[in-house]
Amino acid sequence: MNKLPLLLALLLAFGARAEDGYRLWLRYDRIANTRLLQEYRNTIVSFQLDAGSPVLTAAREELLAGLDGLLDRHTDQTPAATGPIPEGCLAIGTPVSSAAIRDLHLEQRLAGLGKEGYIIASVTDKGHHGIAIAANTDIGILYGVFHFLRLLQTQQDIRQLDIVSAPANRYRLLDHWDNLNRSVERGYAGISIWNWHALPLYLDRRYTDYARANASIGINGTVLNNVNANAILLTKEWLIKVAALANVFRPYGIKVYLSVKFSSPMELGGLKTADPLDPAVQQWWKQKADEIYSYIPDFGGFLVKANSEGQPGPQNYGRTHVEGANMLADALAPHAGIVMWRAFVYSETTEDRAKQAYDEFRPLDGKFRDNVLLQVKNGPIDFQPREPFSPLFGAMPGTPLMMEFQLTQEYLGQGTHLVYLAPLFAECLDADTYAKGKGSTVNRIVNGTLQGYSLPGGPTGMAAVSNIGNDRNWCGHPFAQANWYAFGRLAWGSANATHPLSPAQIADEWVRQTFTNDPAFVDTVTEMMLSSREITVDYMTPMGLHHIMGYGHHYGPAPWFDKGSRADWNPVYYHRADSAGIGFDRTAAGSNALSQYAPEAARQWEDPSTCPEQWLLWFHHVSWTQRLSSGKTLWDELCYKYYNGVYSVSRMQTTWKAMSKYIDPERWNQVRMLLAIQVNEAVWWRNACLLYFQTFSKMPIPAEYERPDHDLDYYEGLKFPYAPGNGAR
Amino acid sequence: MNKLPLLLALLLAFGARAEDGYRLWLRYDRIANTRLLQEYRNTIVSFQLDAGSPVLTAAREELLAGLDGLLDRHTDQTPAATGPIPEGCLAIGTPVSSAAIRDLHLEQRLAGLGKEGYIIASVTDKGHHGIAIAANTDIGILYGVFHFLRLLQTQQDIRQLDIVSAPANRYRLLDHWDNLNRSVERGYAGISIWNWHALPLYLDRRYTDYARANASIGINGTVLNNVNANAILLTKEWLIKVAALANVFRPYGIKVYLSVKFSSPMELGGLKTADPLDPAVQQWWKQKADEIYSYIPDFGGFLVKANSEGQPGPQNYGRTHVEGANMLADALAPHAGIVMWRAFVYSETTEDRAKQAYDEFRPLDGKFRDNVLLQVKNGPIDFQPREPFSPLFGAMPGTPLMMEFQLTQEYLGQGTHLVYLAPLFAECLDADTYAKGKGSTVNRIVNGTLQGYSLPGGPTGMAAVSNIGNDRNWCGHPFAQANWYAFGRLAWGSANATHPLSPAQIADEWVRQTFTNDPAFVDTVTEMMLSSREITVDYMTPMGLHHIMGYGHHYGPAPWFDKGSRADWNPVYYHRADSAGIGFDRTAAGSNALSQYAPEAARQWEDPSTCPEQWLLWFHHVSWTQRLSSGKTLWDELCYKYYNGVYSVSRMQTTWKAMSKYIDPERWNQVRMLLAIQVNEAVWWRNACLLYFQTFSKMPIPAEYERPDHDLDYYEGLKFPYAPGNGAR
Repeated sequence: MNKLPLLLALLLAFGARAEDGYRLWLRYDRIANTRLLQEYRNTIVSFQLDAGSPVLTAAREELLAGLDGLLDRHTDQTPAATGPIPEGCLAIGTPVSSAAIRDLHLEQRLAGLGKEGYIIASVTDKGHHGIAIAANTDIGILYGVFHFLRLLQTQQDIRQLDIVSAPANRYRLLDHWDNLNRSVERGYAGISIWNWHALPLYLDRRYTDYARANASIGINGTVLNNVNANAILLTKEWLIKVAALANVFRPYGIKVYLSVKFSSPMELGGLKTADPLDPAVQQWWKQKADEIYSYIPDFGGFLVKANSEGQPGPQNYGRTHVEGANMLADALAPHAGIVMWRAFVYSETTEDRAKQAYDEFRPLDGKFRDNVLLQVKNGPIDFQPREPFSPLFGAMPGTPLMMEFQLTQEYLGQGTHLVYLAPLFAECLDADTYAKGKGSTVNRIVNGTLQGYSLPGGPTGMAAVSNIGNDRNWCGHPFAQANWYAFGRLAWGSANATHPLSPAQIADEWVRQTFTNDPAFVDTVTEMMLSSREITVDYMTPMGLHHIMGYGHHYGPAPWFDKGSRADWNPVYYHRADSAGIGFDRTAAGSNALSQYAPEAARQWEDPSTCPEQWLLWFHHVSWTQRLSSGKTLWDELCYKYYNGVYSVSRMQTTWKAMSKYIDPERWNQVRMLLAIQVNEAVWWRNACLLYFQTFSKMPIPAEYERPDHDLDYYEGLKFPYAPGNGAR
Repeated sequence: MNKLPLLLALLLAFGARAEDGYRLWLRYDRIANTRLLQEYRNTIVSFQLDAGSPVLTAAREELLAGLDGLLDRHTDQTPAATGPIPEGCLAIGTPVSSAAIRDLHLEQRLAGLGKEGYIIASVTDKGHHGIAIAANTDIGILYGVFHFLRLLQTQQDIRQLDIVSAPANRYRLLDHWDNLNRSVERGYAGISIWNWHALPLYLDRRYTDYARANASIGINGTVLNNVNANAILLTKEWLIKVAALANVFRPYGIKVYLSVKFSSPMELGGLKTADPLDPAVQQWWKQKADEIYSYIPDFGGFLVKANSEGQPGPQNYGRTHVEGANMLADALAPHAGIVMWRAFVYSETTEDRAKQAYDEFRPLDGKFRDNVLLQVKNGPIDFQPREPFSPLFGAMPGTPLMMEFQLTQEYLGQGTHLVYLAPLFAECLDADTYAKGKGSTVNRIVNGTLQGYSLPGGPTGMAAVSNIGNDRNWCGHPFAQANWYAFGRLAWGSANATHPLSPAQIADEWVRQTFTNDPAFVDTVTEMMLSSREITVDYMTPMGLHHIMGYGHHYGPAPWFDKGSRADWNPVYYHRADSAGIGFDRTAAGSNALSQYAPEAARQWEDPSTCPEQWLLWFHHVSWTQRLSSGKTLWDELCYKYYNGVYSVSRMQTTWKAMSKYIDPERWNQVRMLLAIQVNEAVWWRNACLLYFQTFSKMPIPAEYERPDHDLDYYEGLKFPYAPGNGAR
């Protein structure tokens, strides 16, 4: 029996209020730097915030909680009065809600900031120094307050502030794959936080804290239920529960959306068909939309997974995705609701799965209603550790494309691996589609600037599949919180070609707010986070390999698996290892998926000798003995990648061990244990994959590496009947 | 939109460390009574506790956390030295671990206290005043420390202590009905706290805090998994996970037990039979037991649900419960493990379900091995709001009977009703079976004193089906924690005829530790708790009605339900309402279940005109127009009970509203919302039951009561496909 866990358990059990991670990045603990604390106390003497609306009340309460905690002192609200603001005053409000803001005459600066932008600026008013947080709307004020608190939490200099911020993406959503029985498809952090059974009367505190956390990073919408949707949620009894959540979220600028099942008119309405061209079906949806808006006047709209993985859709009736989406869009249009129609479709054909969404949707470009967004996963397959961008980005200039990322780590170590996903998101957003020549980045397609439908008002957005559950710390792994945070910060968007904040900046912010501002910790841990995704690629799916995970639950490696009822549900479909080599030939000689990209984009990948090695096996079937840029054979390079991945996780473990003195023992120990699992599982991935691929390459694992400690039979024999997140329990 | 929830939500969201209920009754907040705080500080100056074992380390850490928090001051450990203890010293230890305790010569007083008892006594040692916490073993010390901290938390006078305590029941267990996919059968507080997937490497802090909470109330064992057991848990991979939990629990005196599936030798061992008389089967279980003990040297034993509700058992092979239980007992005996064999059996026969366990087990009395306990539910049916005691109590003098209570409120409002169960438990324990004449209480059968196999060493015990899940506050409803607490305190037991502590005393203790010592709150809330179970009986199943809940999920009323595939799965089986009257005739004219009780016990129930009205419809079919002691007809009395139940819940709501000033807003608001649900559901119960029974009685609801706001069709049409806790998802 290992003594360390016991002693740690004893150590951690006590202390009446241990750090449990519930507070996320909104901890508001006293500023540890005493010099800075004094400076902040001197700069922030009082505030003015006239809470004339629920949103402003939320902003004031947040400000008070933040200042009380961070400054460890109560900050008084000074009554609004005519004349200059008092020295050291935080003047907060819109030109409508605040006389002080009105007097600062910020109209011109506010003009371009739309409904959600804000200004945070140091101001001098008749010799008095203060800070203004101004916006055109109350929700802009809330965002500004959260930004201001972030400045304090990350210990920024607030003496000369001049911050202007406005979102570049209009819809910034979390997609919950939560079922009505509270199971979460691909959820690894407990069950759904929506306690449907006790709604509408019982409002869990989590609902408010969820809204606070989202608002703090600019998320303004949430799809409450799984895209594999249950029609029952559209019945009155359940809509009243949805409305109760919407009431909690409203003061935080968060709208509620629902995933809907296309066959609902049959299941609920007793109709004989769900044909989108049938007038009775159209009428049913119109009435249903009217009913929803009667409960939730600011309801956001529908997310739809149709004719995908068994879900019903317009094709069941010989209709197109356009006809299906537009019918729903027409029902929502009178209420300004939107339809987010998912492009994640693939059928049982002999065509390369990677090509199918493009083949199916590109011909539909320009045919959707104005209030339809096509929601496209970042890559053409399914949230793999690394994929090239989906070829739909750039291929549908007449259709708003909404990004769909995945925060829950379905294919990236699930609940137990430390993988910071911002580099994955940034890699996709920064990728150049060459749709309109160089600089046609995915980011410019998502934010609409490439097509000219950018904000204000343009139908642009990003969604991410949530990694939130009812675990005490929301996300299970303490570092999984960083992915929620990073998504919000990136979804806010920029009007530029590339994403607004670097993964390093986001990690820095998150670490400071979540753990400590101690630079020794911040620098080390940020660096560890930044390398973590590439490390995961190395020990799971290096060099363009993909989808070689366990069947169904997607837990662990199973490159050998070939028993799925469809070819494209089998890992062997994706890696195509044989005696000649490994990889999926997507050149003209193969599936020619490359042809779906603009020629300049395709060019970087089409020649195996110049294709960057990170994409090599995605696009090419390569001989085991092919020499790569390193001088190694493909087989030896593959071995190197897998062994290096494992080695790098061990290094993360070593790094983390040295961090114990900087933070609370609870979360330090949690991450320590999780890294031990990650190391074990990285070894498992490495051994299982290399032993299996070796049956084709017939080449030895280079002598400098340790031998796998089990044989292939052992790995193939492992079974995980209760792996979490698998299907709709 | 109701403004109150919004304002409260805003109010509650802030304050960096809100009260979330996680700390249970071990909060250790600073003593609010300043006079008492000073007295405690004066009395407790230092302590001596030589932590030479993991158990003593746990005791010391708990003591430190408790004293640091309660006294808001660090209390120093003074090194053990020869000579008298210092003034104000807490001397803690066994005569082996502590020289100070040795010097106090407590051997005689300790002699009768066994392995788990302890003494807490004010002592004077050569003129120095101190307090001794002494025991024969380290675990006795841990129990003594928890008791001492409870004295402080409940603000008792500690100036003249002379406390001696030892348990009267040997096995004090929680039974978790937790499945391996983390769903919990009849769980209403989230999912299982056992994160099997991440075990053995990831040890959730909850495991330690679970052990602390249990040890603080004397619980010394836990059955980790559902009685509807999964054989896979007995494989090596899973036993290693079990062992990891056992390692966390060991320093807290808590042993691990498992529910086992009788067919395991076939499912895991590949045998063709699980016949308990087959030598290969016997051998398989012996080897399996040996294997378990190789991982967990102090493993507790097996809990078995056999030939009950579809579970396999010895009867599948024409063998008896005795043959099945003894086979497992023989496998465990070399390791001192026990078998807890459940008496909860009933088959599809025409015989009254209430009679079947007795009929089946009574003939087996005296035939079980010494390490078998028969685990009997408190009543003959299934954890109803009120049942008479099971007739097995008193009927099997040659067999140790272990009590099985249920903490999770399967039939008592599930996750949303405030029902304090100690009165239910006490009612059963205090009931007189007359097995050996007057005074032969259930308590004396459970604690073995009636049969002479009492402690030390006697096979006596109490188990309770856990109400714990991964909700932040463990139990969902803040007051559900009280049932966990009460069970532990009652299970400790007394050698007397009746239970050791009154429900009022336990509620008082729990309220003081969990909320506040303010007498205005303690007195009011304790009284509310004490009446809550009777109120629930009134609005659910008054006057002896039982099992008229919704089919399957058991949520809400469904007295009309008659579609279950077995007669005894239908509410109509139990209430037997017809035009003549209502109730189950269990007299000699009916099923004659009364004959299973001792004549003196049966006598109190057999005459409907003298049978206490709380049991009336359990034992008798009574005419709607029968006049009762109140002068009312049965129908009018039934109406009175249902209406009075609803009225009383409204009173609880009023009471609670006035309590807001005494406690934290978070838990106050939580209970406020839950009581609103309870009121609604009480009305639902009342209306649905009375409208349905009225179809038989044809009598009006008395004019003084408000009319039901829906008709019977409405109530019969309600569906709850996602009601929680239903079956093994």
